[in-house]
Amino acid sequence: MLEHGGRLRAASLRFGIPLADWLDLSTGLAPYGWPLPDIPAAAWARLPEQDDGLESAACDYYGVDSLLPVAGSQAAIQALPRLRRNARVGMLTPAYAEHAAAWSREGHRLLAIGEADIERELQRLDVLLLINPNNPTGRRFAPEQLLSWHARLAERGGWLVVDEAFIDCTPQHSLAAHSGRPGLIVLRSFGKFFGLAGIRLGFVLAPPPLLERLAELLGPWAVSGPSRAVATALLQDRVGQQVQRQRLCVDSERLAALLCGNGLAPTAGCALFQWLVVPHAPLLHEFLAGHGILTRLFDSPPSLRFGLPPDEPGWLRLRQALQLFNKDFTCPL
Amino acid sequence: MLEHGGRLRAASLRFGIPLADWLDLSTGLAPYGWPLPDIPAAAWARLPEQDDGLESAACDYYGVDSLLPVAGSQAAIQALPRLRRNARVGMLTPAYAEHAAAWSREGHRLLAIGEADIERELQRLDVLLLINPNNPTGRRFAPEQLLSWHARLAERGGWLVVDEAFIDCTPQHSLAAHSGRPGLIVLRSFGKFFGLAGIRLGFVLAPPPLLERLAELLGPWAVSGPSRAVATALLQDRVGQQVQRQRLCVDSERLAALLCGNGLAPTAGCALFQWLVVPHAPLLHEFLAGHGILTRLFDSPPSLRFGLPPDEPGWLRLRQALQLFNKDFTCPL
Repeated sequence: MLEHGGRLRAASLRFGIPLADWLDLSTGLAPYGWPLPDIPAAAWARLPEQDDGLESAACDYYGVDSLLPVAGSQAAIQALPRLRRNARVGMLTPAYAEHAAAWSREGHRLLAIGEADIERELQRLDVLLLINPNNPTGRRFAPEQLLSWHARLAERGGWLVVDEAFIDCTPQHSLAAHSGRPGLIVLRSFGKFFGLAGIRLGFVLAPPPLLERLAELLGPWAVSGPSRAVATALLQDRVGQQVQRQRLCVDSERLAALLCGNGLAPTAGCALFQWLVVPHAPLLHEFLAGHGILTRLFDSPPSLRFGLPPDEPGWLRLRQALQLFNKDFTCPL
Repeated sequence: MLEHGGRLRAASLRFGIPLADWLDLSTGLAPYGWPLPDIPAAAWARLPEQDDGLESAACDYYGVDSLLPVAGSQAAIQALPRLRRNARVGMLTPAYAEHAAAWSREGHRLLAIGEADIERELQRLDVLLLINPNNPTGRRFAPEQLLSWHARLAERGGWLVVDEAFIDCTPQHSLAAHSGRPGLIVLRSFGKFFGLAGIRLGFVLAPPPLLERLAELLGPWAVSGPSRAVATALLQDRVGQQVQRQRLCVDSERLAALLCGNGLAPTAGCALFQWLVVPHAPLLHEFLAGHGILTRLFDSPPSLRFGLPPDEPGWLRLRQALQLFNKDFTCPL
């Protein structure tokens, strides 16, 4: 298994800081969200059924005619590579590592390509897999650009897979509305924007024949009943979504400004995180962890991903730690 | 996808009876259980972590040293066939159909065998898959018998897979305590005994190397955070489990007696259902459905599975419908 952000218990043991005392910025999840709606007892007691309203609420939210709920977009990441054989799969690097692991596990050939090489490499690829915006680099791709790549792949039976896990604050960049096109597969994560990572829910947007094959692989009742009930309510709450979107955007800009103000200008970011490439990323990661602030460290390039603090005490704590770091380490570096 | 019991919405449409008016006996789930324990907000908000207490509570409950939580035993049923190649897989018939579908999907060769033939066929099998007690026949296998079959399979690198979805009321028949033996794989369902089918949780009991391969296929965070929190509390409630066990056993005997009293002596059963083989099973199924009572109909042999009514009005309704059926149909049959 790959290591991930969000492994707070491990950090707690390693740094000897009690679980409750951490400021966890190691994930790209919204750190706040909705009060939980009422969950009918039947959602716990009975097997989940497909016609309970989740699919139609999700179709409305994403603006599509067909989709498949899955137990977190991770489930789709694991299953998609099983729908092809011997594909040459192009991916950017760095990117969320579970994609490469899943395609590699199923025996496909991975090509790590640079963004500038996509045009040239496209003819060699069966599958192009992009994360938009990319995690952790925050890089965004224009829909027109993606659709042009998709068209070239699709005419040879290829796929463009776009993981839109972090796109909910900028839905105008989503390819959801085009996801009926053969060879275009869009993955959406529910938990990140709605602040409910524990819910284990994501959606695959793609033409029905592909969704049927995927459903067959994933089997019935993949998503828990309570998760379906909660998600149905939140997907219908347009006003709440607008409030959440604005709050996340404001906080993301505030985070960028805070990092800038401490000589750590982010390289890029999106509404849910900021990404900072600095040679001393490991040192900064250790320093912050020593102060009970968990960030996500990447090796190549040396970089940190900062999620959003949940509240004012969190903001204050991050500010103070960054100031301390500057005081302690700016001179020798 | 296979059809299953529990498709109440479909029945509701077909028979024109509102959802809330049905007595659903079509599943083998406990129709009552625990008041829901408090679920910490973090279980919804954060990614589930492996060291939150679920695994150790489950190890205590099942009496094992190692296990893997999965999103319903269905997830394990789908994934296990991916851990072998070209196996000859023996299964009894009738039995829960998802097993055969999953092994067949992965290209294995299925041999439908009769119980009396297991001894003779064993040497031809790579995998023997049994449900204990069997669904829907209620047939029980003695642990000594199963262990003897397992030993013969294991010495050739074979597997005995035992699906113990309905065994929680008779844990003395479980092979859980032996599940550290190579080649023995025990599947347990959480939702059936605890009355929480919507929770999507099951466990695979097997030696750690096999569990690691399975975990790799299923990926991280397969079970939702709220489900983990609820299950952890219930797995620790030994008194509550004892009460549930007694109540289910009493109700199962009451169901058998009620069927007997109406000339429909069950062929077999277990604590969670009774099974009735009768030539006119389709007729009885339709008659009961017309009265808003959903049972599970099997074609071969023609048979009905009755789950337990949840409460006294349910018992009364079932009794009255059976009496009406006898009055209307006993003479011409």
